[in-house]
Amino acid sequence: MMIKRVLIANRGEIALRILRACHQLGLETVAIYSSADKHQPHVRLATQSLCIGPAQSQRSYLNMEAIISAANVSGADAIHPGYGFLAENADFAQLVTGSGFTFIGPNADIIRLMGDKINAIQAMESAGIPTLPGSCGALKSDTQQIMSIAASVGYPVLIKAAGGGGGRGMRVVESEDDLLESVRLTQQEANSFFANDQVYLEKYLPQPRHIEVQVLADRQGHVFCLGDRDCSVQRRHQKLVEEAPAPDIPQNLRQALAEQCIAACQSIGYENAGTFEFLYQDDQFYFIEMNTRLQVEHTVTEQISGIDIVQAQLTIAAGESLHLTSQLVPHQGHAIECRINAEDPQTGIPCPGTITKLNIPGGLGVRWESQLYPGCEISSHYDAMVGKLICHGRTRTHAMHVMKQALIELQIEGISTNIDWHLQRFTEQLLQPN
Amino acid sequence: MMIKRVLIANRGEIALRILRACHQLGLETVAIYSSADKHQPHVRLATQSLCIGPAQSQRSYLNMEAIISAANVSGADAIHPGYGFLAENADFAQLVTGSGFTFIGPNADIIRLMGDKINAIQAMESAGIPTLPGSCGALKSDTQQIMSIAASVGYPVLIKAAGGGGGRGMRVVESEDDLLESVRLTQQEANSFFANDQVYLEKYLPQPRHIEVQVLADRQGHVFCLGDRDCSVQRRHQKLVEEAPAPDIPQNLRQALAEQCIAACQSIGYENAGTFEFLYQDDQFYFIEMNTRLQVEHTVTEQISGIDIVQAQLTIAAGESLHLTSQLVPHQGHAIECRINAEDPQTGIPCPGTITKLNIPGGLGVRWESQLYPGCEISSHYDAMVGKLICHGRTRTHAMHVMKQALIELQIEGISTNIDWHLQRFTEQLLQPN
Repeated sequence: MMIKRVLIANRGEIALRILRACHQLGLETVAIYSSADKHQPHVRLATQSLCIGPAQSQRSYLNMEAIISAANVSGADAIHPGYGFLAENADFAQLVTGSGFTFIGPNADIIRLMGDKINAIQAMESAGIPTLPGSCGALKSDTQQIMSIAASVGYPVLIKAAGGGGGRGMRVVESEDDLLESVRLTQQEANSFFANDQVYLEKYLPQPRHIEVQVLADRQGHVFCLGDRDCSVQRRHQKLVEEAPAPDIPQNLRQALAEQCIAACQSIGYENAGTFEFLYQDDQFYFIEMNTRLQVEHTVTEQISGIDIVQAQLTIAAGESLHLTSQLVPHQGHAIECRINAEDPQTGIPCPGTITKLNIPGGLGVRWESQLYPGCEISSHYDAMVGKLICHGRTRTHAMHVMKQALIELQIEGISTNIDWHLQRFTEQLLQPN
Repeated sequence: MMIKRVLIANRGEIALRILRACHQLGLETVAIYSSADKHQPHVRLATQSLCIGPAQSQRSYLNMEAIISAANVSGADAIHPGYGFLAENADFAQLVTGSGFTFIGPNADIIRLMGDKINAIQAMESAGIPTLPGSCGALKSDTQQIMSIAASVGYPVLIKAAGGGGGRGMRVVESEDDLLESVRLTQQEANSFFANDQVYLEKYLPQPRHIEVQVLADRQGHVFCLGDRDCSVQRRHQKLVEEAPAPDIPQNLRQALAEQCIAACQSIGYENAGTFEFLYQDDQFYFIEMNTRLQVEHTVTEQISGIDIVQAQLTIAAGESLHLTSQLVPHQGHAIECRINAEDPQTGIPCPGTITKLNIPGGLGVRWESQLYPGCEISSHYDAMVGKLICHGRTRTHAMHVMKQALIELQIEGISTNIDWHLQRFTEQLLQPN
């Protein structure tokens, strides 16, 4: 492989995930870490480890110059950004390649295109992907035009920031009375949060499912669809449970969507792993955004497809072809992921602390992805997710039974977690008649 | 399912394995334990737990009457024997069914037939399974006849006790000079160890591979072959590494063997899970014994077939049909199991003690089966195996890379283990040119 030494520009479970994929391919790794993370397992396991700054993300994991310096010093030839932090920062991707390193992800132009939701939706619409009825571009200052777009789409409508994400920069408008004020407020917010005051309008779906499609595309132009995932179980726009394949979707719709995503990748020249996100309601899919990076929930797709998505990313970034037998990659069984968060189960407020006891479930169909170890300190500086429990079964019901038993066995003491919330949810679901 | 509550007549990792399979099927469990095992995880997780005696196996896990009492008291309707202890004791199987419980395994007659190696070999020979050239039955007192059998088979030959197993009751004879004395000594040993002085003679193969074939057979007469395993990596007749499928076997031989095993099961009316053990040398298989129970290494077959063998055992014992689409069950990828033993890595002598630190590897393709937890005491009363690390990959080389990384991450402190021995072995294997 053209890549020999990968710098992992991330922390936590995903840093360990990437390290394992690299070492299993015989690649060396460089861990960069903040002073709060010096005891993380991937720091100990990496070929080389470098502290690049203090606990605050702005001065460590978001510090582009420090990361490039670490890559230079350590002799890395490629950088994997993981998810979060700089993973969808086009400037970072550009800096990485401009500094002579391989960026493990798509090129900066594609990241930039998809980072602006208005451009992303327009690009996808041109590529034949279904989108929501809406303003087809940024709202202009013409108030008559705004009102006429909203009226033709039909209330409720959603005002969204072009640069938004993660549930921020969005406002539901129920009637024309609130329309212009909501547009103004969202523009204001968008300007201060995302330094981009462009907003757009689209049809608001009150109870859509969140379905996403995983693709892999290599430099040789081969595009593969690894199937869909359902990520509808969310709280405050944060995904909590994901599963693959998405249940109860007519096979013809599922296949048509996969083929549309493959065609769209070919049309925009996409490279590396990517995810198309859709809302789904009344047998219709509506594109909302594309994530140009590894997703937290890539694991469930790996379980049913047997494909290591991180290794595929490395293969693609090294310029090699993917050798999969079918564009629509076949899958077996059903997989579910529960995100385990260090948080108050009632309020969802993060609960940092020290792990005093840890019992990890095992057995057939159980996968655990986590940086936790007994004595590990959960810092308040980072995301509250401390682990992912992934279960695989022959059927969805079987996977749910495996998950329930694994959640019973999973014990994390010293911090509050949402384990019991997950357990209660699966217990109730399994009691419902099919 | 006709079974509602399963008594698990075992301990350690396999008790936890069986508990998980039961709970995932919605069945209740009863844990029986010796006083040394009261803190084992399956004891805590079971629907009900009963102490049945002191640490010594003879007075707990081998105490048939105590186990039957526990089944009565707890309202269990079925008993799973696991492996070891009473799993291949025909009298126990008979007592279980005679007491009105379902025995999760084949019937007592089959266990008895296969428990006597002479009868087992003769039954398999009649059923068309290839066996080693030899005495075709117990050696009689006629010394001329013994010498003429040995001469026609050709030296070296092996003298084996009909009731032997686990490497005991065997003697290699290099020439006629030692033949009769070896027969006499083996008979003496067989009489005192196995209360059965019958011995037989077969061709001795100096460096055979150990290949076994996993079958599942239901009461309706459906027999399925889940493929083969290679268990050649042994020390002192104890398996240490197992993998599936067995590497480097010509596809036509592999398939013919699977078909012969299916036919043999049908001919003897076999029911439940079973394993045919063969020696393999120069493209020839030779039957040596059949294990009428779950094997330690069933896990590798599960990884490549996607079938939960313990759940299949429960389904069969409940009188239900197995619904598999093909008699020769298809498989994907390659799986390897390392047995992790609490032992001195040089001498292999068991090292009991208390676990002071435990780090369990995770990630894609990694499965851990173990009763260990931090603070857990490893008793000298039982088998030294404290865990099984199972890794699955696209290819054998990939599975070995996954195993190597998992072995690097696996940390067990407070006792001596063979983790480093395994790690060194895989590291060396991966350095060899393919």
